[in-house]
Amino acid sequence: MSAEKNLIELGLTLPPAPPRGGVYKPVLIDGKHCYVSGHGPYLGNGKSITGKVGKDLNEDEAKKAAQQVGLAILATLKEYLGSLDKIKRVIKTLGMVNATPEFEKHPYVINGYSELFAKIWGDENGVGVRSAVGMGSLPGNIAVEIEVLFELH
Amino acid sequence: MSAEKNLIELGLTLPPAPPRGGVYKPVLIDGKHCYVSGHGPYLGNGKSITGKVGKDLNEDEAKKAAQQVGLAILATLKEYLGSLDKIKRVIKTLGMVNATPEFEKHPYVINGYSELFAKIWGDENGVGVRSAVGMGSLPGNIAVEIEVLFELH
Amino acid sequence: MSAEKNLIELGLTLPPAPPRGGVYKPVLIDGKHCYVSGHGPYLGNGKSITGKVGKDLNEDEAKKAAQQVGLAILATLKEYLGSLDKIKRVIKTLGMVNATPEFEKHPYVINGYSELFAKIWGDENGVGVRSAVGMGSLPGNIAVEIEVLFELH
Repeated sequence: MSAEKNLIELGLTLPPAPPRGGVYKPVLIDGKHCYVSGHGPYLGNGKSITGKVGKDLNEDEAKKAAQQVGLAILATLKEYLGSLDKIKRVIKTLGMVNATPEFEKHPYVINGYSELFAKIWGDENGVGVRSAVGMGSLPGNIAVEIEVLFELH
Repeated sequence: MSAEKNLIELGLTLPPAPPRGGVYKPVLIDGKHCYVSGHGPYLGNGKSITGKVGKDLNEDEAKKAAQQVGLAILATLKEYLGSLDKIKRVIKTLGMVNATPEFEKHPYVINGYSELFAKIWGDENGVGVRSAVGMGSLPGNIAVEIEVLFELH
Repeated sequence: MSAEKNLIELGLTLPPAPPRGGVYKPVLIDGKHCYVSGHGPYLGNGKSITGKVGKDLNEDEAKKAAQQVGLAILATLKEYLGSLDKIKRVIKTLGMVNATPEFEKHPYVINGYSELFAKIWGDENGVGVRSAVGMGSLPGNIAVEIEVLFELH
């Protein structure tokens, strides 16, 4: 099984790797570990999916935004690693939803990202530990931000 | 000193390990490191301690909720590792309180969890680095969510 | 290049290392990794920079608060490690801004911290992966809280 082949079979289009939005590295390699900075639901041309989940976006729109975050992370990985096949598995994800104080379905939203990675790297290696939580605000009012730690082959 | 014996001596009752609430692994082992997904204050039978801290729960009720998160994590560890004695020490904790914007006592709340782990694994090994912070919202309106990284023997 | 010399050349004054605010370790060493607990913009004498960013503080005041968090972390590192020169590089930062729900400039704010560390350890080693996000509330109403993972020499 190849992550690159799985991506092609899914028929999903990657956005360009998001431009850097501050003083940080998008990806950092530490031995067999690959850390990825917080990513938003980047669409390309400087645009992202924005809005408060529970008010401007419903849970299904937010789930699609979380999938878009996953696609943006894949774009960054391809730019920095060359191939998604260099990733062995997902270790840890922090899924952050820009939600109203009353919103309760963060896991459902972040599943949009997790289900994508499970299709790319498989149900065993594509799924790691996770927290899915609600932030008070996010940069540029993006709907979802996700950071992730991978293990490399 | 045995963590399992310490748990018995404390006389506290563990809830069942919480059911999975999304696409993630409750526990992931990476060499000598044991990552645990975000846990809530699970009571069993699908129920958890819910509400906004600073409005629906006061700081002492929230501290008890944080202790309950600790008990839920212990239940998950016993299910996945077999024994709490496989844990060498706590490395890092992210303690997330579902609080009103005005709430200020997050460290006091998360101490409910940290004091429990200090009794289970001792003041040196049961205590790691920590951030105790306030979220805008949490899944199912749970009062507290905590994720943790352990080192294994 | 020496981080200690860079600090002197910057002419910035470190606060005392912040007192512990709960049951946690300020610093934990795990092999070549140095974990640092969430720090606030500590000024000394029990005082920190407080207030909601976007209401009580504007983005430039908040950026200075983020720099102050960086100085407080440096103070803690010097107390626990003896010298900043024991740090090889920044791996990962979680920058948390105590912001109004409408605030959007979290990366700009956290740059106050990241630019400081880039001056201390250099543009390559002083800059790691990062998420810069908005919290619903923070302990004692501090304006910014930051946790960080370093690699040691």
